Amino acid sequence: MEIERLDLAAQLVRIQLIQRQLDARFKATGHKNVSMPLLIPESLMLKEADHVEGFAPEVAWVTQCGGEQLAERLVIRPTSETIFCAMYAKWVNSWRDLPMKYNQWCSVIRWEKSTRPFLRTSEFLWQEGHTIHATAEEAQEETLLMLDVYREVSEVELAIPVLVGRKTDKEKFAGARATYSMEAMMQDGKALQTGTTHNFGDNFAKAFDIQYLSKEGRLAYVHETSWGVSTRLIGAIIMTHGDERGLKLPPRIAPIQAVIVPVAAHKGGVTERCEEIQAMLQTLGIRVKLDNRDTVSPGYKFNDWELKGVPVRIEIGPRDLEKGQCVVFRRDTYEKQNLSLDGLGEALPALLEDIQQNMYAAAERFRDERVLVARGMEELEAAAASGFAKAMWCGDAACEERIKAELNVTSRNMPFDQSPVGEHCVCCGKKADRVIYFAKAY
Amino acid sequence: MEIERLDLAAQLVRIQLIQRQLDARFKATGHKNVSMPLLIPESLMLKEADHVEGFAPEVAWVTQCGGEQLAERLVIRPTSETIFCAMYAKWVNSWRDLPMKYNQWCSVIRWEKSTRPFLRTSEFLWQEGHTIHATAEEAQEETLLMLDVYREVSEVELAIPVLVGRKTDKEKFAGARATYSMEAMMQDGKALQTGTTHNFGDNFAKAFDIQYLSKEGRLAYVHETSWGVSTRLIGAIIMTHGDERGLKLPPRIAPIQAVIVPVAAHKGGVTERCEEIQAMLQTLGIRVKLDNRDTVSPGYKFNDWELKGVPVRIEIGPRDLEKGQCVVFRRDTYEKQNLSLDGLGEALPALLEDIQQNMYAAAERFRDERVLVARGMEELEAAAASGFAKAMWCGDAACEERIKAELNVTSRNMPFDQSPVGEHCVCCGKKADRVIYFAKAY
Repeated sequence: MEIERLDLAAQLVRIQLIQRQLDARFKATGHKNVSMPLLIPESLMLKEADHVEGFAPEVAWVTQCGGEQLAERLVIRPTSETIFCAMYAKWVNSWRDLPMKYNQWCSVIRWEKSTRPFLRTSEFLWQEGHTIHATAEEAQEETLLMLDVYREVSEVELAIPVLVGRKTDKEKFAGARATYSMEAMMQDGKALQTGTTHNFGDNFAKAFDIQYLSKEGRLAYVHETSWGVSTRLIGAIIMTHGDERGLKLPPRIAPIQAVIVPVAAHKGGVTERCEEIQAMLQTLGIRVKLDNRDTVSPGYKFNDWELKGVPVRIEIGPRDLEKGQCVVFRRDTYEKQNLSLDGLGEALPALLEDIQQNMYAAAERFRDERVLVARGMEELEAAAASGFAKAMWCGDAACEERIKAELNVTSRNMPFDQSPVGEHCVCCGKKADRVIYFAKAY
Repeated sequence: MEIERLDLAAQLVRIQLIQRQLDARFKATGHKNVSMPLLIPESLMLKEADHVEGFAPEVAWVTQCGGEQLAERLVIRPTSETIFCAMYAKWVNSWRDLPMKYNQWCSVIRWEKSTRPFLRTSEFLWQEGHTIHATAEEAQEETLLMLDVYREVSEVELAIPVLVGRKTDKEKFAGARATYSMEAMMQDGKALQTGTTHNFGDNFAKAFDIQYLSKEGRLAYVHETSWGVSTRLIGAIIMTHGDERGLKLPPRIAPIQAVIVPVAAHKGGVTERCEEIQAMLQTLGIRVKLDNRDTVSPGYKFNDWELKGVPVRIEIGPRDLEKGQCVVFRRDTYEKQNLSLDGLGEALPALLEDIQQNMYAAAERFRDERVLVARGMEELEAAAASGFAKAMWCGDAACEERIKAELNVTSRNMPFDQSPVGEHCVCCGKKADRVIYFAKAY
């Protein structure tokens, strides 16, 4: 129960820190936050054929409101392309109105038969970016720019290395011309798709009649993108970094970066000194907590904070104070060291950054060791048993389907670096010119 | 259309700034942000009789999900007491678990027959605080504390004076023992209820069986509160401060605090100098925008930014530069003054603060002049024609109902300062010991 309660609050703090990182970058790249309606009339959902086909099976319908049956059903947004498009059509007149670059932080509903915490839930918190542009080139630039923003946040802030690339037509978003993804490897070797960006071209613009008057005075359709990441990122953190002692949070997004545990707190001066050190570290901008509970032992606290993933523990007892030092434990390597209390304000930020880098390096090493080149179905199966397969693919969806049917392995994405790792399709053996990753996936 | 677009983005920026002010205070008073489910099973809604009676007529029902008819309908949250209670019942065991103090930022749906932008919309963004406590005293303390937080944000940040007090039983929240509100006076003299806090006592605790083991080892029901403010606060800003030129935003929450408009921008050095001044002001933490559009005239820009409520306009032309000065226009009083460019960094923060104080003082003066003591129905009608009536009330709901039926005037709240303004009920003329505000209301 303690964990359940902690999670309820701490998960939000955690996503708030991740949110802050993402939101700052969205704003720096010229996007504005907006809030669009939760409920979308069925007629809007029906306008783009691929989109409705993709989402219709998994939406929640509102049919009764204020005691009355509705004449037209409303869908709880599974994603908001259709409502943005309905508004774009009203807002856009001339090339001067473009680009429009919006983002919203909200929750969406996709009715799932089987759910899994953080990875697949019927309601999930996410952000969805929606933009329209005058040209196809600009829309493509935006699609790749936001993919790179996602990659950067994942790698720099969450310490999760990702493989970025383009999805196959089979795996792309309903209604998109092209979908790009980032894919992380979990500790069981399975892939987790942690973010996607989509280029819709003028698909939706045609369905919703979103036209603008160009500089040259001609009517033209806008080009559209969307992109999203969700609370799935929290799942990725848990499954990338966690170990047998519990969570292991990267310092940059850890709600508590260091916890101070007094040892023999009743002894003269220990609590007071701990409070001083907490205050000193707080003025340095470190998110520090003093655990002064008197109902549990220091040993209990050690386990408790390791379980909760706090990157650094600072133990301070009467003997330490005599020597002017403290014991510092790092969650990532379990190493303990004595540090001088006078130098703690300088040492701790460096230590936190070292932990961040070390966590990234460990995850990258793990991932790199488990990406294997596969030249046929047997090698593909073997690679996917422990990680990702990097392979050549002929481009035929039939091969993707056979791989999925026989091995329960799916295509992840096609990297931007297309240096060949062979000449023949991993499945059918025909001439192939596409490099692609395959894996078992969540 | 331009306005519509601006609003879409700027309203969010605006509520983000208001949100930041509120959220910081919620955290400072020990609350944690959480995220609870959007959809609530009908059986949970039915548990507290008053609550379901109050909300059932205005909720939206989900009846179909993932292509299937649901066995149990789900309601889109109109407010989240029931779902919090369902969780409290699982989380609470002992007095050690109390208090629990949560807040969530989300949208809710209440199906409205007639809507009005910012004041009454079927979906609205809000925050809802939810807390449980061991004792009735603590719950009451929380209820009043959060009312005071709301009052402070309204008065200090939004420059909107409010009357705080307790609602009558007729006007209280569905399921609450006591509801408190803050009430602002709009420029047409009508009241806008801009925030409420509720003390539920153990009403919900009994309905949901939320018990804890006290220090003395006895089972006891928890005492619960909730409190909320919404995008209605934006409506309050518009209707409290706006004038015939458009919006008038208080500097502390204005997304743009000062706009720089170059005059004769093509003349040598003007644009460059404007950019320097913008950069200088930004380093001081002022939210400043340089309007360097070359498609519209300075006069157009003046009107444009006045319409959008920017508190300060800085005009800079070649002549000003020669004299080392600029023209500074303040939106609240329409006054123009010449300020030295060298001193601008010092003068502008003081000017913004002066505008903030002046806007509050003007709103307070307006309000105070229109709160009139009423000693009978005629005086009540007269007072409510231009503002609020302060009156004595016998406490009988029948009088409230008659006042509403005859005058279309409703009770607002009973102030904490109960110094009598008479001896007899404004309606029935019987002995009365309650001081209360009446007004026409949005």
